[in-house]
Amino acid sequence: MPRYALKIEYDGRSFSGWQAQAEHPSVQARIEAALAQLDPGFAAGARIAAAGRTDAGVHATGQLAHADLTRIWDPFKLAQALNWHLKPAPIAITAAAEVPEDFHARFSAIGRRYLFRLIARRAPVVHERGLVWQVQNPLNVEAMRQGAAHLIGTHDFTTFRSTMCQAASPVKSIDCIEITEIALASGTEYQFRLAARSFLHNQVRSIVGTLERVGAGSWQPDQVKTALEARDRAACGPVCPPQGLYLTEAVYPTNPFAAGEGRAVWSD
Amino acid sequence: MPRYALKIEYDGRSFSGWQAQAEHPSVQARIEAALAQLDPGFAAGARIAAAGRTDAGVHATGQLAHADLTRIWDPFKLAQALNWHLKPAPIAITAAAEVPEDFHARFSAIGRRYLFRLIARRAPVVHERGLVWQVQNPLNVEAMRQGAAHLIGTHDFTTFRSTMCQAASPVKSIDCIEITEIALASGTEYQFRLAARSFLHNQVRSIVGTLERVGAGSWQPDQVKTALEARDRAACGPVCPPQGLYLTEAVYPTNPFAAGEGRAVWSD
Repeated sequence: MPRYALKIEYDGRSFSGWQAQAEHPSVQARIEAALAQLDPGFAAGARIAAAGRTDAGVHATGQLAHADLTRIWDPFKLAQALNWHLKPAPIAITAAAEVPEDFHARFSAIGRRYLFRLIARRAPVVHERGLVWQVQNPLNVEAMRQGAAHLIGTHDFTTFRSTMCQAASPVKSIDCIEITEIALASGTEYQFRLAARSFLHNQVRSIVGTLERVGAGSWQPDQVKTALEARDRAACGPVCPPQGLYLTEAVYPTNPFAAGEGRAVWSD
Repeated sequence: MPRYALKIEYDGRSFSGWQAQAEHPSVQARIEAALAQLDPGFAAGARIAAAGRTDAGVHATGQLAHADLTRIWDPFKLAQALNWHLKPAPIAITAAAEVPEDFHARFSAIGRRYLFRLIARRAPVVHERGLVWQVQNPLNVEAMRQGAAHLIGTHDFTTFRSTMCQAASPVKSIDCIEITEIALASGTEYQFRLAARSFLHNQVRSIVGTLERVGAGSWQPDQVKTALEARDRAACGPVCPPQGLYLTEAVYPTNPFAAGEGRAVWSD
């Protein structure tokens, strides 16, 4: 059966998360339903796998999933047909490509990138409601950068993972935490960009929630190091809400959407 | 009665436009209801005036309205109280200031600025749904700029105004049409920024809809000049939909939110 990689955007406000759950709308189940409509051979109960199993309310601009279909598709036509069947759900396929049989969206991935959007202002956000986390007061970016520096590299991240996390080991390597400050017409946006091979459950939200406390002046930057070294979930700052979080990219040894690999590829 | 200027953001998806209409939700009526809740002296039937009477679906990040209240308010407290009473409507007061009695949001304004957001890509937009106009194919920005250049200055804009327009004269002066191109993770965004003392009804949407035809190659840039000179509504390109349009600024001889004018001012 030919295998296809799909690059996926979705609005987390409409879903209880990526993963299919009985009686809750999930991104995974919605895409599987669309696949079943266009490929009758896509068996009922067939599943797709994704690079990141995002929580309820979390968004994606670059989720990646793979699906096994029964017939050969032109990737552009596959994406167009899927986008048609996905209507009116806020999910879009922005790229599609034929991939080797041993490509796996989750297990072949060697990197994930997340963006977290935080807006500081007094007046409630309007157009960005559900798309950002809002706080009332401006933050100290330099202090947040100092706090974040303690988290770069390989560490035991027990402090920064959910007690529900199912990963075998709490040891992860964070390659990068980039924090940028953008002046808005009203208020200030802070964007946190994190990259790692993989993340623990709630790791990004635990880190951003803690760095916000540093930016607000409630924590000294060095307290992030103390919290990390405690290897104790209770030492973490408050976990921030999901609505500012975006899975922006899944990274593979070979970019599945790069043309010129002898495979059929389409990218918007 | 003390007069206050309010800077207002709103999401046009929830309203049939700025102007109060029986049986249709309007931004004006929603703000008037909030004012009546916090200032019992704000008489039932009292109206607020705004710089721009935006249509259904049109957004604002910098609408400006004035209101006469019966008691003196600290502008920060006024904005906070209004934002409280406006919940959960997608409207926010982002600045407030006491203004002189002869200040009028509409008649004192000497400039209006609009932004139009257009995204070109195949896959349906997700997070920006209702916040941008989407077309399928990339546009030629240079051709659009050449077309737009014919509209700068003082002209009879009969071609580019709604047949419903109530303005006494079709002659207006456009100061600026700036077009920028932004590469997105998927697709391209085109932002049109227009500035004039005032605009005719549907003028911005008529202009952007026509320039899109130029960008798509259906019109030559010089046809914009021919259309303008025809002074005939039938010569206009298609009027584009409202959801990409934002009123971003109303300009006054003295900025009502500038501190140091001896008036109480708050800005987020």
